[in-house]
Amino acid sequence: MKLRLIAVACSAALLAVAPALADDTTLRDQAKGAGLAALPFGAGKVENNPLIHEKIDLGAMLFFDPRLSASGLISCNTCHNLGTGGDDNLPTSVGHGWQKGPRNAPTVLNAVYNKAQFWDGRAADLKAQAKGPIQAGVEMANQPEAVVKTLKSMPEYVERFHRSFPGEPDPVTFDNVAKAVEAFEATLVTPSAPFDTWLEGDDAALSDEQKQGLALFIGKGCTACHSGVNVGGQAYFPFGLIKKPGADILPPGDKGRFAVTKTASDEYVFRAAPLRNIALTAPYFHSGQVWDLQQAVAIMSTAQLGSEMSAQDTGLIATFLTALTGQQPQVPYPILPVETKDTPKPRF
Amino acid sequence: MKLRLIAVACSAALLAVAPALADDTTLRDQAKGAGLAALPFGAGKVENNPLIHEKIDLGAMLFFDPRLSASGLISCNTCHNLGTGGDDNLPTSVGHGWQKGPRNAPTVLNAVYNKAQFWDGRAADLKAQAKGPIQAGVEMANQPEAVVKTLKSMPEYVERFHRSFPGEPDPVTFDNVAKAVEAFEATLVTPSAPFDTWLEGDDAALSDEQKQGLALFIGKGCTACHSGVNVGGQAYFPFGLIKKPGADILPPGDKGRFAVTKTASDEYVFRAAPLRNIALTAPYFHSGQVWDLQQAVAIMSTAQLGSEMSAQDTGLIATFLTALTGQQPQVPYPILPVETKDTPKPRF
Repeated sequence: MKLRLIAVACSAALLAVAPALADDTTLRDQAKGAGLAALPFGAGKVENNPLIHEKIDLGAMLFFDPRLSASGLISCNTCHNLGTGGDDNLPTSVGHGWQKGPRNAPTVLNAVYNKAQFWDGRAADLKAQAKGPIQAGVEMANQPEAVVKTLKSMPEYVERFHRSFPGEPDPVTFDNVAKAVEAFEATLVTPSAPFDTWLEGDDAALSDEQKQGLALFIGKGCTACHSGVNVGGQAYFPFGLIKKPGADILPPGDKGRFAVTKTASDEYVFRAAPLRNIALTAPYFHSGQVWDLQQAVAIMSTAQLGSEMSAQDTGLIATFLTALTGQQPQVPYPILPVETKDTPKPRF
Repeated sequence: MKLRLIAVACSAALLAVAPALADDTTLRDQAKGAGLAALPFGAGKVENNPLIHEKIDLGAMLFFDPRLSASGLISCNTCHNLGTGGDDNLPTSVGHGWQKGPRNAPTVLNAVYNKAQFWDGRAADLKAQAKGPIQAGVEMANQPEAVVKTLKSMPEYVERFHRSFPGEPDPVTFDNVAKAVEAFEATLVTPSAPFDTWLEGDDAALSDEQKQGLALFIGKGCTACHSGVNVGGQAYFPFGLIKKPGADILPPGDKGRFAVTKTASDEYVFRAAPLRNIALTAPYFHSGQVWDLQQAVAIMSTAQLGSEMSAQDTGLIATFLTALTGQQPQVPYPILPVETKDTPKPRF
């Protein structure tokens, strides 16, 4: 009893100069208790789409192939650039005809661990997601039939679809394009972030400031929305739960998940952003209007928690968030099949 | 004498059913005599720019980094896509603001072996070339100062420039950006094309049709312009030397090298296209208006040689040209440094 009182007194003394720092074991238990989890090695799981090497390789080719777009200029990688954190570092993406998309491109990295895809969760999984941008007029502006015609015009692609979907008599389909892309994307995971290494027992993997930031991240309630393997991406919440941010950050015209469910309570509801590699994917929020991670934390604090956090606290949380940057996927740039006379010409 | 007459008679008899096919040794001597040469393994030579691994790796990063453009969207690889033969498969490239460029993007593959760069040879070498598109308003639309500011804002880039240009106190310069890109591009060579393997003694590396096509390529005079290691790219010639092609293929507004030299005799003069990997880089000519290789051969025949070649002959030459497709460079897709608060924001 006496010892415990001394410990509390010591903690209180420390508290005066910096946020309380629990020992690593306690903090680790708190993190796990709050639903945070290490990212597994290897590809994530996908449903109704067996992962085989041939299909993953085909998906990599499709992911990088600009001929999936009407113009022949825009690939999945244009907006989900694997060299820059799996996104494009733009407020909102630029697509066909230099049109600007309505929302910030989410990272493809670890997207396999999201509950659903897109900011409003309108795609149940990666294979459903993959079909969207290919067809969106402001993105790749193509049609499924044209995509299939393009792929069927190149014998190497046809052969690779046969090997990727063995037993299917006519495997070059838009559905299988999406499945191959999903298979590749399931491999785009970033394990061994400092946070993961620490979570698995290496006390030295996080700095003291990062541990203080983690303690705040849990203690202030951030983990209520940002938890699970992907530190978010698991459920939907109103943006501005307590206080709506300004119209620059939350444009009134974009009602989020309401467009999907047509339910009044889903107005301005979005999927909580997954925070892995967040230090690589500025600018932030669906509107892409905030470039600074600490500022993004401050906005979240006011909007979602209803508290003005001190600059010290937002700084510590932002520092913790940098510990979510994992090992980026190493991908050989694929050599693509050559067009033939039957390949549809670029349209732009 | 008698034997020789018999040989001539036999050749004449063969000639009646198909173009004369010399034995491999003779044809090989003819090819070498006409200035054709095998592509060496390894990086090409560049001047005043020592090749070191650090610089080549830095150049690869810069080549793939869209933040060298004003918009943050367009990289060297956008128009010189290493997955599709080192070009973009478009008639003319699309750049900043979806503007269309004036000429077809030449392939970056083996460009180190060209006498000079661009269709009009206005850049003496690859490092001079690299500075053009970054600044061109219709391409990457950036300024040297902004490029340097962008790169200096990212500590990893600064460190890599120091390692790439050891001894320089302030190595992050626009000149060194160009040198690093040149160093990487010098490695983008495609050896071991079937033609190279044949030229080095493997009779089986070319089909009979390809050998017939090669014999025609030499015999009809194509090698007068398309010779050397790069099967072209060595000198300048008027497009339409004998007969001007139509305005769709040779737009009157683009006077070619005349814009560089201001010499009347350079009107409609262009660098002879290097023909390696030509089967991968449709559409053809500086105007990018011809999608079919055999048709391109037919146009060349009429315009440059003044003869209407038979469909059989143009077909055989086109078949030979497919033997110039070499092993494409295998490049790991580079993971790029992350922006900081000092990185200029994308402008678009």
